[in-house]
Amino acid sequence: MYALNRLLGPDIGELLAQRRYDQLRAALLELEPADIADLVGGLEQDQAALVFRLLPRDLAADVFSYLDSEQQQSLITNLGNERVAALINGLDPDDRTALLEEMPAEVAQRLIALLNPAERRVTQTILGYPEESVGRLMTPDYVRVKPESTIAEAMDHIRRYGRDAETVNVIYVVDEAGRLIDDIRIRQILLADPAQTVDSILDRKFTALSATDDREEAVRLMQHYDRVALPVVDSRGILVGIVTADDVADVAEAEATEDIQKMGGMEALDVPYLETGFAPLLRKRGGWLSVLFLGEMLTATAMGYFEGEISRAVVLALFVPLIISSGGNAGSQACSLIIRAMALGEISIRMWLRVLLREVASGLALGTLLGCIAIVRIVFWPARAKLYGEHYMLIAAAVSISLVGVVTFGTIAGSMLPFILRRLGFDPAAASAPFVATLVDVTGLVIYFTVAATVLRGTLL
Amino acid sequence: MYALNRLLGPDIGELLAQRRYDQLRAALLELEPADIADLVGGLEQDQAALVFRLLPRDLAADVFSYLDSEQQQSLITNLGNERVAALINGLDPDDRTALLEEMPAEVAQRLIALLNPAERRVTQTILGYPEESVGRLMTPDYVRVKPESTIAEAMDHIRRYGRDAETVNVIYVVDEAGRLIDDIRIRQILLADPAQTVDSILDRKFTALSATDDREEAVRLMQHYDRVALPVVDSRGILVGIVTADDVADVAEAEATEDIQKMGGMEALDVPYLETGFAPLLRKRGGWLSVLFLGEMLTATAMGYFEGEISRAVVLALFVPLIISSGGNAGSQACSLIIRAMALGEISIRMWLRVLLREVASGLALGTLLGCIAIVRIVFWPARAKLYGEHYMLIAAAVSISLVGVVTFGTIAGSMLPFILRRLGFDPAAASAPFVATLVDVTGLVIYFTVAATVLRGTLL
Repeated sequence: MYALNRLLGPDIGELLAQRRYDQLRAALLELEPADIADLVGGLEQDQAALVFRLLPRDLAADVFSYLDSEQQQSLITNLGNERVAALINGLDPDDRTALLEEMPAEVAQRLIALLNPAERRVTQTILGYPEESVGRLMTPDYVRVKPESTIAEAMDHIRRYGRDAETVNVIYVVDEAGRLIDDIRIRQILLADPAQTVDSILDRKFTALSATDDREEAVRLMQHYDRVALPVVDSRGILVGIVTADDVADVAEAEATEDIQKMGGMEALDVPYLETGFAPLLRKRGGWLSVLFLGEMLTATAMGYFEGEISRAVVLALFVPLIISSGGNAGSQACSLIIRAMALGEISIRMWLRVLLREVASGLALGTLLGCIAIVRIVFWPARAKLYGEHYMLIAAAVSISLVGVVTFGTIAGSMLPFILRRLGFDPAAASAPFVATLVDVTGLVIYFTVAATVLRGTLL
Repeated sequence: MYALNRLLGPDIGELLAQRRYDQLRAALLELEPADIADLVGGLEQDQAALVFRLLPRDLAADVFSYLDSEQQQSLITNLGNERVAALINGLDPDDRTALLEEMPAEVAQRLIALLNPAERRVTQTILGYPEESVGRLMTPDYVRVKPESTIAEAMDHIRRYGRDAETVNVIYVVDEAGRLIDDIRIRQILLADPAQTVDSILDRKFTALSATDDREEAVRLMQHYDRVALPVVDSRGILVGIVTADDVADVAEAEATEDIQKMGGMEALDVPYLETGFAPLLRKRGGWLSVLFLGEMLTATAMGYFEGEISRAVVLALFVPLIISSGGNAGSQACSLIIRAMALGEISIRMWLRVLLREVASGLALGTLLGCIAIVRIVFWPARAKLYGEHYMLIAAAVSISLVGVVTFGTIAGSMLPFILRRLGFDPAAASAPFVATLVDVTGLVIYFTVAATVLRGTLL
């Protein structure tokens, strides 16, 4: 089991060091492919290649599919051509597509050349679909039966062709032209009378993806219908492949990671944090950081306009960070809520007005809350007169009124920006907390100094 | 298919209005349960109850499981006791548990009383496990076989008991005492010789969850091993249930949503944004917003210490928002990266030093980048002398040096806070961008004014 396998790690290192390959092979055969992949991932390149040569071919392909793309590439350079050909041919088509996509184009072409003609055709078909499309995710390894077959014939067919299928949990029924008629669960076949025809157990209700659909559509449909596999059809309704739940779960996880990184104010990394090189990491962070910095420079310009007010009442400057950060925080909450709700399909772009009204009300309430806290803090602070001068009541009023305005504006900006970005065809997740904060900082300064100038006219200013 | 079903919506509303119930029933029977649930979700309460009474009992239970908990509760209050009993008894145990958890305790007790004795025992067993545990997620509806059976006997057994099982894709092999020996895929049984014993096709390698494991462990294992179902055993190794991929996908999605909302600086909502009441929404946002506001008040205190410097050189105040927000943005990037990498299991707590060294280097590089942009912007700006006075070169130096310090500090704070929170037993996702920004704002001000005081001593200050 899981913990047990992890304990075996050191022993395997020892067997490898002592060149006791028969024992090593026996120990490896006890393990799950995913766990062998974990072990191989922790080895030096030449040792990893050595372990791979010990594995039976089928198991080797299975283990290979669990490695990450960096480890796969290093193995490919360390194994001979014949061994690589066996590996690549043994992979499931969807895993093979994922591998080839990660490769430099010339390496990918060399690998495609190693494939046998049938596998090569399958791979090239899948690679013809746009990136992040359902076509790249699908596998052509499924079992299909004719409606006129009997259940017994269908079972024979499944026994014959099921070995290479990605799933036998769902069986696809197609007509003479290859058009999808229905998908049936294996349990329906198992539980039916063997003499019945397949046609008699069909309900002809099915849900299918198109090969050119965005892969997020696969996540949404799989979630909506709670399926383990979904069929993929072309524009004529002809069955061209299936996508399975495990691949879709990987996509859902990758999309959530992308969103979280974008919402943190950076470009999404394509590979795990620790495997991202230092230079790409800096590029993906530095780019957005510089853009935000240039935007934030407007705050210096905005404050420049109020330099006169600040020099007459330095006390005003003390509250600048407090006020603008409160607007930024309120905006960050609003945009996180809306972006996630959009990603889950809970909110569509047509609902913007409903969201706006709700967020204006939230912003006013939250701003009033913070305004009250500010009044209490300034008016009842023992050192109020020494810190803020004799007009501390007026300062408290200016700060509180500004807070209501800034928090409301932050909430509106944070909630509407995802709608605007989506409307313009961008990813709503680009409405990161830092982006909203920058927007709110500049506006917040203008709101604050305008309110202060009005409230304090004739006294401090 | 999907789009087609959506189009049927208006027609069904019309049939309902014209009381053409036979036609309505026929139209509904054409649809997928998930789509009927969509339609029912859009109807008034009494209409929804009416549609439900038209559905055959099995289908009604199926549709019911696709409704969200609010809709389920409203249906339960609108349907008679007998109908509710049929519905609740017809639900899969895991869906039933989810429903009962959402209900007020007294309603849940009333519903449990409506269950037949066998279903009641199952439900009470599942409800005995801690919240967010694997026990709450599992279903006892699986097929188990004895190792000494033949494949043909096993097939008969699957035919007999498979109808009520959550999955027949994986069959579980247990010994006389009920201890799990192995899990086998249906394809292995389908493809085996019917005269063989089950024992002869076992490899006795399996991965099992414990009923008291956190449900995130189920997500991690399911992901790691690419399974459609995982068995759950108690402390003695006895099989007590299974969890299936669709439930685990729901958990993974819910956990990502929680993380995103926490990282946005608020408490996680338990229900979708649009279904969250206004009062709970304000509470979950206002709480954190107030805490952050109280923390941010320290910026006013910190700036108070430098009031003398500001009054002598008001120009210093102009750069305050720029500098502190750059630190906050850098911190937001770092904490988003680290929190997600932790959630995906890419980074464990033991790796803190490696991450720290990497982030110090990133912070210095990114700070230097922003510092250079600031120098260019201040030194080459046409109105530099008018805006910043004759000592603009010194101001540029003070701002740039501060940026290096503040961005580095922000990066360190953002990356280390998740480690500290996890070490203390809190959720790392609580290290939200606003939380990090608040921390960095106060420190950033101290760094900036200290650097400025040093650089500008004898000239402006």
